[in-house]
Amino acid sequence: MRLLLVNPNATVEITDRLAAVARAVAHPGTEIVALTAPRGFPYISNRAEAQIAGAIVMEMIADHVEGADGAIVAAFGDPGLFAARELFDFPVVGMSEAAMLTACMLGARFALVTFAQALGSWFADCVAAHGLTGRCAGIRALDEAFASLAHVQDEKEGLLVDLANAAVTRDRADVVILAGAPLAGLADKVRARVPVPLVDPIAAAVTQLEGLARLAPAKATRGSFSRPAAKPNSGLSEALGRRMAGG
Amino acid sequence: MRLLLVNPNATVEITDRLAAVARAVAHPGTEIVALTAPRGFPYISNRAEAQIAGAIVMEMIADHVEGADGAIVAAFGDPGLFAARELFDFPVVGMSEAAMLTACMLGARFALVTFAQALGSWFADCVAAHGLTGRCAGIRALDEAFASLAHVQDEKEGLLVDLANAAVTRDRADVVILAGAPLAGLADKVRARVPVPLVDPIAAAVTQLEGLARLAPAKATRGSFSRPAAKPNSGLSEALGRRMAGG
Amino acid sequence: MRLLLVNPNATVEITDRLAAVARAVAHPGTEIVALTAPRGFPYISNRAEAQIAGAIVMEMIADHVEGADGAIVAAFGDPGLFAARELFDFPVVGMSEAAMLTACMLGARFALVTFAQALGSWFADCVAAHGLTGRCAGIRALDEAFASLAHVQDEKEGLLVDLANAAVTRDRADVVILAGAPLAGLADKVRARVPVPLVDPIAAAVTQLEGLARLAPAKATRGSFSRPAAKPNSGLSEALGRRMAGG
Amino acid sequence: MRLLLVNPNATVEITDRLAAVARAVAHPGTEIVALTAPRGFPYISNRAEAQIAGAIVMEMIADHVEGADGAIVAAFGDPGLFAARELFDFPVVGMSEAAMLTACMLGARFALVTFAQALGSWFADCVAAHGLTGRCAGIRALDEAFASLAHVQDEKEGLLVDLANAAVTRDRADVVILAGAPLAGLADKVRARVPVPLVDPIAAAVTQLEGLARLAPAKATRGSFSRPAAKPNSGLSEALGRRMAGG
Amino acid sequence: MRLLLVNPNATVEITDRLAAVARAVAHPGTEIVALTAPRGFPYISNRAEAQIAGAIVMEMIADHVEGADGAIVAAFGDPGLFAARELFDFPVVGMSEAAMLTACMLGARFALVTFAQALGSWFADCVAAHGLTGRCAGIRALDEAFASLAHVQDEKEGLLVDLANAAVTRDRADVVILAGAPLAGLADKVRARVPVPLVDPIAAAVTQLEGLARLAPAKATRGSFSRPAAKPNSGLSEALGRRMAGG
Amino acid sequence: MRLLLVNPNATVEITDRLAAVARAVAHPGTEIVALTAPRGFPYISNRAEAQIAGAIVMEMIADHVEGADGAIVAAFGDPGLFAARELFDFPVVGMSEAAMLTACMLGARFALVTFAQALGSWFADCVAAHGLTGRCAGIRALDEAFASLAHVQDEKEGLLVDLANAAVTRDRADVVILAGAPLAGLADKVRARVPVPLVDPIAAAVTQLEGLARLAPAKATRGSFSRPAAKPNSGLSEALGRRMAGG
Repeated sequence: MRLLLVNPNATVEITDRLAAVARAVAHPGTEIVALTAPRGFPYISNRAEAQIAGAIVMEMIADHVEGADGAIVAAFGDPGLFAARELFDFPVVGMSEAAMLTACMLGARFALVTFAQALGSWFADCVAAHGLTGRCAGIRALDEAFASLAHVQDEKEGLLVDLANAAVTRDRADVVILAGAPLAGLADKVRARVPVPLVDPIAAAVTQLEGLARLAPAKATRGSFSRPAAKPNSGLSEALGRRMAGG
Repeated sequence: MRLLLVNPNATVEITDRLAAVARAVAHPGTEIVALTAPRGFPYISNRAEAQIAGAIVMEMIADHVEGADGAIVAAFGDPGLFAARELFDFPVVGMSEAAMLTACMLGARFALVTFAQALGSWFADCVAAHGLTGRCAGIRALDEAFASLAHVQDEKEGLLVDLANAAVTRDRADVVILAGAPLAGLADKVRARVPVPLVDPIAAAVTQLEGLARLAPAKATRGSFSRPAAKPNSGLSEALGRRMAGG
Repeated sequence: MRLLLVNPNATVEITDRLAAVARAVAHPGTEIVALTAPRGFPYISNRAEAQIAGAIVMEMIADHVEGADGAIVAAFGDPGLFAARELFDFPVVGMSEAAMLTACMLGARFALVTFAQALGSWFADCVAAHGLTGRCAGIRALDEAFASLAHVQDEKEGLLVDLANAAVTRDRADVVILAGAPLAGLADKVRARVPVPLVDPIAAAVTQLEGLARLAPAKATRGSFSRPAAKPNSGLSEALGRRMAGG
Repeated sequence: MRLLLVNPNATVEITDRLAAVARAVAHPGTEIVALTAPRGFPYISNRAEAQIAGAIVMEMIADHVEGADGAIVAAFGDPGLFAARELFDFPVVGMSEAAMLTACMLGARFALVTFAQALGSWFADCVAAHGLTGRCAGIRALDEAFASLAHVQDEKEGLLVDLANAAVTRDRADVVILAGAPLAGLADKVRARVPVPLVDPIAAAVTQLEGLARLAPAKATRGSFSRPAAKPNSGLSEALGRRMAGG
Repeated sequence: MRLLLVNPNATVEITDRLAAVARAVAHPGTEIVALTAPRGFPYISNRAEAQIAGAIVMEMIADHVEGADGAIVAAFGDPGLFAARELFDFPVVGMSEAAMLTACMLGARFALVTFAQALGSWFADCVAAHGLTGRCAGIRALDEAFASLAHVQDEKEGLLVDLANAAVTRDRADVVILAGAPLAGLADKVRARVPVPLVDPIAAAVTQLEGLARLAPAKATRGSFSRPAAKPNSGLSEALGRRMAGG
Repeated sequence: MRLLLVNPNATVEITDRLAAVARAVAHPGTEIVALTAPRGFPYISNRAEAQIAGAIVMEMIADHVEGADGAIVAAFGDPGLFAARELFDFPVVGMSEAAMLTACMLGARFALVTFAQALGSWFADCVAAHGLTGRCAGIRALDEAFASLAHVQDEKEGLLVDLANAAVTRDRADVVILAGAPLAGLADKVRARVPVPLVDPIAAAVTQLEGLARLAPAKATRGSFSRPAAKPNSGLSEALGRRMAGG
């Protein structure tokens, strides 16, 4: 099984971190093809960047669709997820979607814990876009600057654990999702220090996509997620333009 | 990996059908332990029977918990699911829960198609209990008698396919779930005749539980899904009584 | 009029307390038949216990249905309520349901005040199961241990009044429900110390059931609350098994 | 016990019909004081008329508050209900509120059946104002003219029964409310011809108000339903003006 | 263009303040006809007063409908808005409705800031009546007495700015509405001291009504906002009675 | 006042039609700068195209921001709206957003009528994204092919009017929105043939944006719609890249 891990952020270190966690949880027969955004932003953190990065995600998948069995949109917030699900024939899973659906099987209500206040509203939009607001106990974020995005999970480990515990105690969360690509792998390190299940989004995404690919659902040929009718287009990347034109 | 397939219905033929589909989709290293309710009803179809059967599910898991890595509540409607999730340390997944969460990754809205009108309200309650009413496009059920529960999927195959197509055309469903244990295995047979992805609940449950067990989340020690405090009790089955007493 | 007060908890002292409040509010011609669970747990406080106790409630009603005009499920959380309503021909009312519906006629939003944090999530589920989440201003619970369940309302009277006042001041509750069987009778004692109407669930349940029994609605013969079709069954208590078999 | 039956419609025949049903269901010791709107409209059927009639309801209660133990706003749509509940010290119940809350104890979802399409939107607003939209299976109304409002229930009996049956069969209603003052008393006549419980709103209102009055909840002195602070005013009816001024 | 500014409060100073802000924002060709309630209360602040004042709003518009192109219900809480919209042929806009809809174009979630706790519940009802609860981040109100309603915005300016900032920081509001007629004009004075857009409800109402009047939508002749059928009536103000009678 | 009319579709005929309606409704002093997408698709009709077109909208605004007072995203579905609102300092309004908010002031529930089934799900997403699902009575679309997008409103005029009438009669819509850029101008032509107010989205957008620009709200410097922090970026259009980098 060959799965695309599509990082919409243009930072190789984040891709490497995500890929390491993904490979650790994947079955032996699963190949993880890790892709870094060739253009855009070092790290997406708001609606404006996500609008642009979502289109870049579509380009990246179009460039690597050949021979793949599925794709993960590997940024919390799931930029471009629904568009990619509509356009491509194999399963596409979002990192936040997978984390939330997995959390739904572990408790009644989940909380998101993340490393920057600026992400809060965008993440709340994401929860709503998946129709899961009723199951979200809250979103808690660090309130202070950090030295390096790539190492924020080490630098702020204690504070992030504190936030997770506050989500349990004050927000009555049954499950905590450690949200944001830079936190990949943290759940495993701190699981003994939080009294509820922790979900690592990229790990959840890999198991969800492996499961889906195994079920091999048919691509819709009618309805809202059938492939868009072929249309002439201009100014798109070569592979994406070809696909939108029906190729 | 050793997974309990807990059929709350006291009908071995249904268990056999579920187990066959489960084993077909499971990974080679997964052992499916198929259990049939030792008491109760041949087929659960309403709240009254589900209240009783849910308690029997707890007994069944308590009897077989040793050495297992997870359990599936293998009746659409998920009787006893939340109680079992609270009580046991390994992951417990419901067949309808797994089907709906899987459907959520395949489209915006799913429909349920089933074989008896009587199931409609109970299934609607189940959708609501999972907080997914906003993603449910509708519930469609056969309106006529059938000769045999065990063979209803063969006897009514054409009509069930018609219902699935009506769900797509009239209710704008992006995905169709063929709901109810007696329909296990039908999705595979008719997938070419419905223009959207079909979800087979027991197949979805196996992949979801395999994924969860692989992630091996910690059991909550606080909050709403932590194990209930030990309590004296009387009149329960031996193993269940022992577990509720803290054993 | 003969009404069953069905206590799902196996503690006679709680039944006695409930019966005393029930008899005080009932009309002269109303006979309250107070029943204590013959098996199960001394006090139900989570989903696992409620799943089991709900089935015991059904047994208790089946054992005493003869000559009765209605039944109250006398534990906050309403274990077994919807199942019993489906199965029996007379009105069945839940103690939390009656309290919440009564509160709805006294203000826009009600709060629940109870004696143990552990009850919070289960009560929240109960509010949701009745579709009243939008009218619930919050759930407040004591955060400390108590010496005796039977006397918690005396021991913690001051703190419970503080919680009720906090619900008014901070959560903007228009009405406060003192929730949980061990708090039966407390409302009357402290009403002068809380500036909004207090609802005593068992008192509300008695007046609601008296009213319903007076209206004498027909038992549904179609739809979701009609009596389940007769089914063979095994391993149930004698009277309940007979009733499920159509007797 | 002395209860005001406040008919916001200026038609004595409707008051008489309501009073007859109310007295038939009331306890022997309950006195029903039936009041007809002294000004306004023969029959309220939209928002504009309800806005005006709601203020008239307040006048009517202010005129007769002395010696009364509670009041019923006796028009479906509950004009003036929340205002009256705020202003007066005894319980005030709405006819549609009481019908819907009663229906909630008889099934999961209720339908409204009424005699004129024009009422549909106003009734839908009323369901929403009580936060019960999630429990409403639908609103069905006659689509044709009738000779006399006072006798519409006789003239259209067959069609109204058909609507009730359609609500059960097509909308999956568990309970049917026969909505609108001119239908008072119809439920009893046709109960054998509809296979689910029927609710007669004025009968439900009497039993709900008797129950509430028996519970004798304290009047709120804080929060959203405490009595408004005294204010100077002008141009109101004498008794209402006095009350608003703190008298 | 001639627009009625209908102040349901019987206080000329408030009308003057509203009219000044309205005229400052209106186009040169727009005439603002400012009307003060001829009876009722100096300042409406709860459901009881709003029920009465809403009927007075209808009288005021009926008295001045001739030659006008639209009307603003100029009290936060929108008393009588839906009734007036139904009854009259020109557009009618509520001050709180216009503020909230305008806020919806400036951010995802708005907060209300006002000058008295007592207004909180009534305003929450108003948000819900417009179906915008999901976009409301919270309602914050001053908690202390003030010397004069007419000058509360000067007297408490600093505290009101603090509340607005708290709404941004703690409730994550993207926009703040300064709610209540006595705060008209404040937004402009303090805009530099709050880091998100401020909405002045009367200014928003004028621009919304000017826009609507320019679009000149047809009056509904069917459906829920068509003009009520003519009905005999009694005891209403002369012009209103005539209009309700079809005049 | 100088307003950008940003057509995300790469079809000049549609831009021309939109601009004609916009100029007809705009105030004399308003200049409408009509822009056609320089790349992308002739007509956007699904999530995949909207994801890409939304990023193009951002480029188009960045290219023309100088000297403008606001922008309209002139495609139903509002591609890129929230991203543009975050990024730019002047007001940005969506054509569907403006239509729906305007409809909210004309009735309780609006319907969308459009020319292609394929648009239904995307439009439903758009309604949900604005939090207005509760006020949407339904979406009705033509079910048959048409000869030319540019002239579909003439070719199918009768059928579109039929759909609008069905929305009133069967879905109980109080207002009908004629949705989709190719229908611009139709509302005016057929207003006499539909018995409720019709909303023309581009006309609504112009009046809403003129109103907003007149109010001149401050740009948020905190919260979810403040301008994103400057970030290095690559591969974007020149002006957009500069702006994202803080220029």
